Amino acid sequence: MMEDAPMEDLSVCGYAWAPPFVHGLVRDLRVRWALREAELPYNMNYIAFGEHKSPQFLARHPFGQVPTFKMNGTELFESGAIVYAIGLRSEKLLPLDEEGRLRTISWMFAALNTVEPPISALPAQELANNDRGWARLSLPDEVAVIDERLSRLSDWLGQHEFLADRFTCADILMTTVLRELRSTDILEGYPLLAAYVRKCEARRAFKEALDEQIGGYLLNAPLAA
Amino acid sequence: MMEDAPMEDLSVCGYAWAPPFVHGLVRDLRVRWALREAELPYNMNYIAFGEHKSPQFLARHPFGQVPTFKMNGTELFESGAIVYAIGLRSEKLLPLDEEGRLRTISWMFAALNTVEPPISALPAQELANNDRGWARLSLPDEVAVIDERLSRLSDWLGQHEFLADRFTCADILMTTVLRELRSTDILEGYPLLAAYVRKCEARRAFKEALDEQIGGYLLNAPLAA
Repeated sequence: MMEDAPMEDLSVCGYAWAPPFVHGLVRDLRVRWALREAELPYNMNYIAFGEHKSPQFLARHPFGQVPTFKMNGTELFESGAIVYAIGLRSEKLLPLDEEGRLRTISWMFAALNTVEPPISALPAQELANNDRGWARLSLPDEVAVIDERLSRLSDWLGQHEFLADRFTCADILMTTVLRELRSTDILEGYPLLAAYVRKCEARRAFKEALDEQIGGYLLNAPLAA
Repeated sequence: MMEDAPMEDLSVCGYAWAPPFVHGLVRDLRVRWALREAELPYNMNYIAFGEHKSPQFLARHPFGQVPTFKMNGTELFESGAIVYAIGLRSEKLLPLDEEGRLRTISWMFAALNTVEPPISALPAQELANNDRGWARLSLPDEVAVIDERLSRLSDWLGQHEFLADRFTCADILMTTVLRELRSTDILEGYPLLAAYVRKCEARRAFKEALDEQIGGYLLNAPLAA
């Protein structure tokens, strides 16, 4: 079989199993989603949950985090950087012209350095809590910062279908960032953002990536759980 | 005069004045530093502090933040994206080979999505406080997350002179992130990190960018202050 370009050797490292409250949130989801949008075949590599702070894994990732991504022998880390590297291989994720590319990169950093930080500042137990009004009541200052960012983002998405001119890897990052709020009621105050997340989650590549991640966790669930 | 390449029209937008506790921290410093490392001439554009949330400025920057960067008519936002765009114009900041480039991008995202978020989660008044032990005493959980990230970073910099193979735009981002801790005593626990920051701050391009930012603020200080 003839190919236009040599097949690359791509592999993603994630957890074999993770506790249910992070299913669908662990960041290898971003990478699997991007690879499926780009229609690039990849292998999965797994480490045990907890093993990410072992000396062996720290030799692969300086901060001991998941995912890592191996591309023809080069190991990359940080989901934002990995999704960008995949974008460089597919016009479906990243425009070819410099202006479009740099606008997309602006939105990638906006997702990870402007919108995500105040969300990840909410304590993990807050995000895992089932009483969905709790965050707003118990952490009013923290939620106010999130509200300010989400209001601006909602204004933008009221006038634009996607962050850049069309669906790009910036939307992969922003959608997965907004999903981190799923156990709170914060997103309910922003119907345009909720609709944007639903629209991106309806993409086949997202659904396949999510099924793959959660299916793996269920398959590898500890017998005692 | 002959030039190898046409001169580009580059301009940075920052605050005309900002309150003293953020002098040397406002993020246009990253952009000015990168431009000076790359030896690219640029113009400065100023807005009044507070004007960044005006409808006029929000039309330029969806989140109403400083800096923005105009490059031949394209306006970019997010300091990470702007520094990357400058890196694409100078091998001094970003290696030309793909592997070196992707490693540098991994470290850029690590600075802004792994190291900076727990630091920016410290309340602003905490960072402005003069009692340098206060953060550690009053926010033990928040400081524990910072400590975990700084320990990993210190391990890396104990074995590497810079984040990537040599000084790159990732070091500009990481240095300015670590400077955000200056009013706390947290960095004192990491002599390798303190030395890394001092080494990067000793670069001529950093000193010129810092002088330019602070000099502008002093020149435009309100008479009443």
